[in-house]
Amino acid sequence: MKLTQFAYAQQLDANDPLKRFKERFVIVDPSLTYLDGNSLGRLTHAARRRAADLVEQWGEQLIRSWGQGWMDASTRIGGKIAQLVGAKPHEVILADSTSVNLFKLVTAALHHQPGRMNVITDDLHFPSDVYILRGEVKAAGRAHQVQMIPSPDSIHGPVNEIAASIDADTALVTLSHTVFKSGYVYDMAALTAEAHKHGALVLWDLSHSAGAVPVDLSGAGVDLAVGCTYKYLNGGPGAPAFLYVREGLQDQLENPISGWMGQKNMFEFDLTYQPEQGLRRFLTGTPPILSLSLVEPGVDLLLEAGMDALREKSMRQTEYLIALWEAWLEPLGYALNSPRTAEQRGSHVSLGHEEGLRIDQCLIEDYNIIPDFRAPDNIRLGITPLYTTYQDIYRAANALREIVDKNQYERFSHAAPRVT
Amino acid sequence: MKLTQFAYAQQLDANDPLKRFKERFVIVDPSLTYLDGNSLGRLTHAARRRAADLVEQWGEQLIRSWGQGWMDASTRIGGKIAQLVGAKPHEVILADSTSVNLFKLVTAALHHQPGRMNVITDDLHFPSDVYILRGEVKAAGRAHQVQMIPSPDSIHGPVNEIAASIDADTALVTLSHTVFKSGYVYDMAALTAEAHKHGALVLWDLSHSAGAVPVDLSGAGVDLAVGCTYKYLNGGPGAPAFLYVREGLQDQLENPISGWMGQKNMFEFDLTYQPEQGLRRFLTGTPPILSLSLVEPGVDLLLEAGMDALREKSMRQTEYLIALWEAWLEPLGYALNSPRTAEQRGSHVSLGHEEGLRIDQCLIEDYNIIPDFRAPDNIRLGITPLYTTYQDIYRAANALREIVDKNQYERFSHAAPRVT
Repeated sequence: MKLTQFAYAQQLDANDPLKRFKERFVIVDPSLTYLDGNSLGRLTHAARRRAADLVEQWGEQLIRSWGQGWMDASTRIGGKIAQLVGAKPHEVILADSTSVNLFKLVTAALHHQPGRMNVITDDLHFPSDVYILRGEVKAAGRAHQVQMIPSPDSIHGPVNEIAASIDADTALVTLSHTVFKSGYVYDMAALTAEAHKHGALVLWDLSHSAGAVPVDLSGAGVDLAVGCTYKYLNGGPGAPAFLYVREGLQDQLENPISGWMGQKNMFEFDLTYQPEQGLRRFLTGTPPILSLSLVEPGVDLLLEAGMDALREKSMRQTEYLIALWEAWLEPLGYALNSPRTAEQRGSHVSLGHEEGLRIDQCLIEDYNIIPDFRAPDNIRLGITPLYTTYQDIYRAANALREIVDKNQYERFSHAAPRVT
Repeated sequence: MKLTQFAYAQQLDANDPLKRFKERFVIVDPSLTYLDGNSLGRLTHAARRRAADLVEQWGEQLIRSWGQGWMDASTRIGGKIAQLVGAKPHEVILADSTSVNLFKLVTAALHHQPGRMNVITDDLHFPSDVYILRGEVKAAGRAHQVQMIPSPDSIHGPVNEIAASIDADTALVTLSHTVFKSGYVYDMAALTAEAHKHGALVLWDLSHSAGAVPVDLSGAGVDLAVGCTYKYLNGGPGAPAFLYVREGLQDQLENPISGWMGQKNMFEFDLTYQPEQGLRRFLTGTPPILSLSLVEPGVDLLLEAGMDALREKSMRQTEYLIALWEAWLEPLGYALNSPRTAEQRGSHVSLGHEEGLRIDQCLIEDYNIIPDFRAPDNIRLGITPLYTTYQDIYRAANALREIVDKNQYERFSHAAPRVT
């Protein structure tokens, strides 16, 4: 059977050891091909039930609910995410947004590294992270330099250049583990070791890795990490983010946004701040309980499936997509804007085309396929192995082929990208 | 009819012009007397429906939902809260927690006031706000002094002392508008004018005021404000907070936690931060949509009732409670730890008793009455005029009387205060 036959995709789905997980998600429109789970993951049935339960709990138990699972939700769910990213349970906590957590950890890291005046990142890093980094340095009036290493191309990280730039003046190296546009995955262990050789701290953004790409924070000896929960963790729109601090560092670092949730005895209402031991000191204000609690069912599902099995399926699926690209799309002018090597690739694939934006619109309107778009020309296809099928991938590749082959995109205007 | 008769409370309820609003709330246990709405407000039927709708929207519309009311929720709901606090619609936005917002505004304010090295607050301010304030100064390595003016007693703010302390070196004056423990309400207009006379900025925390006490930010010319939404606004547990920046200041201030939600063209993913015009620049990361959106139904209900009517009922109810205290509780050793003058009092009343903690436990266990407790001895009773009845107040006062009169609290141990 040929790779380009629909029956081939059907066979791959039939043999998929994770196929039973799709029914754990709410699928309202079975004709929809959803390839944007790397931006907003699907709703699980468990999260739907949990949402209803939480609202009833608010209505019935009111303030008493804080003692019934709300107060410890940040650490409880953090402890589960820890299992997905190779950390100890008490090394991960849920709080605030990725950006706010990043701000906290950057400040804490720079204070922990007095005299070291350089912070290294690269131009593949998520722009918001760069804004936060530079914003922190500016707001605190620091003399630090934020050194942005240029990537050799728009796909691969400038790994050698980063390694060569780290020296005794480097306070912090901070990167996206999986690049939001190309899906390039850094060698976490190697770069972390390189930084440690020079006494620098390392802070990884795991937003496009957690739940999709194996991460071994403990194994790599990573110091700090942040990540979002609404992509592959299926936590729901804007669900609070997680932050990780290596065990040995926790009591040495100070949270600059020191609110009452990180206070040692918060209900004594003492006017002097005394940080809680461990990671709770990195909490700030009262967390948004409904959004926070809904992170748990998605994480439970990933733990049930297991990261090894998920990674294996993800790699097979991105390989399959790339094989279809080679067969159909490369000849039509689509560029592969993701690494060709599976080991260097996360769970999304970006295909570039000069008509990318209009093709994207055509996918949505004419094919009921939801991809993502990232300027200037990337059609980003997110593979979420818990529910993405090989048939989904076939349909998307086939549609991309037809759209360009028959110039179907031409009826669309060059509109602004969608809000995603 | 005597004030101390139950029939008197019944009559007050019968004549209450806002009585119809109670049925807009989910009341699971009609025998429960809930006087902790100033810590976590009740669930509205509208919020329960909205929660279900939001979850369905996530499941069905997925990423498309961002263009269907999610992306503008922060400004839309902020605009409604603005009406409750006397601001213009574009002067209030929802984002993050009160603590994170406070941090942002403190940094922005201090940058806007170069050369002024003093920040004034007082010891009645919410402790977490003080942690944030001092934490910001420390983390940024500022030379500023945080001057904490002592209050004359634990009830009333040190108004004259604050006014006398403001001078040309004062960068910022920041206070709780309504004090979390005693319920004392500052004269916002007078203190703001005093600060402006010397060129200082003013930042009010409205957490215990919004939706309970009339606030006229524009009338008072207030510069900055923050506030929470889960108390009198009934927004749900840990719902995102609001922040206010006076129109004329918005484009002069910089958000130190500069994330992508405040970026001018966020979907261009440019690596250089360029702040959005207006208040959106004070957004940071992706907001927790479920928790954020549920703020709206509660705010709508307050707008429907009207702040004037709410304040009138609140004042009548706290007066009624204090009258019962005079008749029954003062002779039993209860102290009134809130202002005696209605104009100086918010919508909660604190009654002190040396056995406060055990009395509090007895209220909960034996009477199904939920108050709040604030160390060292305050039984804090929150009046939320949308749903608190005069009969609720009667029952609470009567229980407080019985508990001490019959030493009912003695069977309880001196346990730690509840989590609230």
